Amino acid sequence: PTVHTVAWDPVAAEKGEFRHFMQKEIHEQVRALTDTLAGRVDFDNGKIRLPQLNLDAEGAKKIKKIIITACGTAAHAGMVGKIYLERIARIPTEVDIASEFRYRDPIVDADTVVLAISQSGETADTLAAMEEGRQRGAKLWSIVNAIGSQAMRVADGFISMQSGPEIGVASTKAFTAPLVDLFMLAVLLGDLRGTLSEKERFDLVADLRLVPDLVGRCLDREDEIIPIARKMKDAAHMLYLGRGVNMPIAYEGALKLKEISYIHAEAYPAGEMKHGPIALVDKDMPVLAIAPLDPWYEKMISQIEQAKARGGSTLVVATEGDTRVPDLADHIFWVPKCPWLLSPIVTVIPLQMFAYHIAAQRGLDVDQPRNLAKSVTVE
Amino acid sequence: PTVHTVAWDPVAAEKGEFRHFMQKEIHEQVRALTDTLAGRVDFDNGKIRLPQLNLDAEGAKKIKKIIITACGTAAHAGMVGKIYLERIARIPTEVDIASEFRYRDPIVDADTVVLAISQSGETADTLAAMEEGRQRGAKLWSIVNAIGSQAMRVADGFISMQSGPEIGVASTKAFTAPLVDLFMLAVLLGDLRGTLSEKERFDLVADLRLVPDLVGRCLDREDEIIPIARKMKDAAHMLYLGRGVNMPIAYEGALKLKEISYIHAEAYPAGEMKHGPIALVDKDMPVLAIAPLDPWYEKMISQIEQAKARGGSTLVVATEGDTRVPDLADHIFWVPKCPWLLSPIVTVIPLQMFAYHIAAQRGLDVDQPRNLAKSVTVE
Repeated sequence: PTVHTVAWDPVAAEKGEFRHFMQKEIHEQVRALTDTLAGRVDFDNGKIRLPQLNLDAEGAKKIKKIIITACGTAAHAGMVGKIYLERIARIPTEVDIASEFRYRDPIVDADTVVLAISQSGETADTLAAMEEGRQRGAKLWSIVNAIGSQAMRVADGFISMQSGPEIGVASTKAFTAPLVDLFMLAVLLGDLRGTLSEKERFDLVADLRLVPDLVGRCLDREDEIIPIARKMKDAAHMLYLGRGVNMPIAYEGALKLKEISYIHAEAYPAGEMKHGPIALVDKDMPVLAIAPLDPWYEKMISQIEQAKARGGSTLVVATEGDTRVPDLADHIFWVPKCPWLLSPIVTVIPLQMFAYHIAAQRGLDVDQPRNLAKSVTVE
Repeated sequence: PTVHTVAWDPVAAEKGEFRHFMQKEIHEQVRALTDTLAGRVDFDNGKIRLPQLNLDAEGAKKIKKIIITACGTAAHAGMVGKIYLERIARIPTEVDIASEFRYRDPIVDADTVVLAISQSGETADTLAAMEEGRQRGAKLWSIVNAIGSQAMRVADGFISMQSGPEIGVASTKAFTAPLVDLFMLAVLLGDLRGTLSEKERFDLVADLRLVPDLVGRCLDREDEIIPIARKMKDAAHMLYLGRGVNMPIAYEGALKLKEISYIHAEAYPAGEMKHGPIALVDKDMPVLAIAPLDPWYEKMISQIEQAKARGGSTLVVATEGDTRVPDLADHIFWVPKCPWLLSPIVTVIPLQMFAYHIAAQRGLDVDQPRNLAKSVTVE
């Protein structure tokens, strides 16, 4: 009997209706974020449950400092996490790039928590940073996607990302899940340490319920992003600007574009523009500003005006209904209105789609960009 | 009698032999750094004297945290300062961009020092950050160049930069002076807090004596930098990489190039390259690496190898006598051997000259770059 070999690529098959894993994973965020909340958020009692952290009130009160250590996209999640932990739980928090932390003789003791964030849980620099923390007596926590990975095993407590497997090298759903994890962690710590009133706690917890739908509404606007990507796909440069809680999203948005489109996109805290980078702005340097209705909105509007006055074309992430941005922006990425602390989870979505569609329209290998590996297990 | 009006521009006259104030100010660094040490360093007794800080042992021991707040170039000095203060005085130190600090509800109390760095002493965001610190009960220190400026007047203690007037918009001598100020501050705090052995203290103080000569020897190599600038002056992009104590110098070097040459130079902690930016590296993306003989030297060599393997042309700041860099670098900026903690003061010098000569060769207005003001007194 003749044996017929059927060509079947199980990996390709899994992409379903999507052209690339990255696009599929961007769209999986509604599901991933729903799973992130499931079983951990008790909306009725306004409580967060993260049992794998092994944390009680006594342990929570003992914490004097949290050092978040991570690389790349995970470090950008950590930058948002710093704001959550300081605002909500009033714990001084530093973010330290793992490759810097491990070699700089950091000040860490038994009242310090070293919190590692890693999709793979095998990132070499991040593991070394955890080991550095361990040797100095710190408590170790991790936020990790890959079950059973080293960063999960060596931690005293962990939060398991509910992202599911991520195949595209440019991380998307493993960025938004840890944002929600960090928000939940901050609320839990604020609760255990008594820094939140009952009303504040209930309100913060209630806000979490909105997240999957808010993200879904951003995804619904994908068709509006494709023509913007077509306009910008031949850009050589871009400047991404944000302030406050959305400043890290400027870094994350620029990194996505770098990784898969090879466009030289650089991020800056918007307030730093006038201290140098604005010299770069002319008609060949488009400026992308993240300006939702958050406490930094007025400042961002003024930054956009300045960029526009220097001839830069302007792309703006703005809140639906905003009436000032349309007068200033050449292109707008609309996002739904949302509680400002959670806005980074929303504003990053159009930037992921923008980077994706630019790379796809440039005909690049979106899921396997040149020079990059999914998990960096060497130093 | 006929009155003859003699055209005489007092400002132009002051440039002397130099084409631009920036070039003159780069060369004034030997004098500025000599003045920075004068009267403050007691080499015989291995002691630092900073009387305008109004600091005694009791006050020094009370400090639980230092938050350095600044903008632009001054913030890069602060990034080096963090390493000095943590390594030498073992005081946890954060660096916070002033425009971010003032709006993010920072955790600050009476045991915190808010240390502002500002050339003009009138930087709006930095003054607002000091005010934010004051309202939360922090002690306020400043490192300021302009005598009698607001940042000097409102501080509880200050260090007066001995840079002299700086006219070029791109700061140079008002970058290296605060590096030395921060080093002296760290030694003084380490002394008062008892974190240094007598030998350590004597050694650190003795190292300071070398600084003016080390900087002078970098300046003597200006002629070697001009042809490198000629080669690179039409670059559209550059990536500056550093690690550890020289990571902030990557940021400062890239900022100089941005400010006056309008070349899109971006800085990165070198260890982050493989987490995204290395996707950008090809023959059109030159990589400039700062790789003196410091504790991160081996890691930097490996980064340079990786950049080279991806086709990027490589420019390297290296220590005289280094035998490995010449095999890897297309262009070398040689610096003299120096104590590694002080190396940022040395490695930045060729990068200042490099940016200057690129801008001058491009025929740009070096001292008054487009869109920028010397002192940013508005938000």
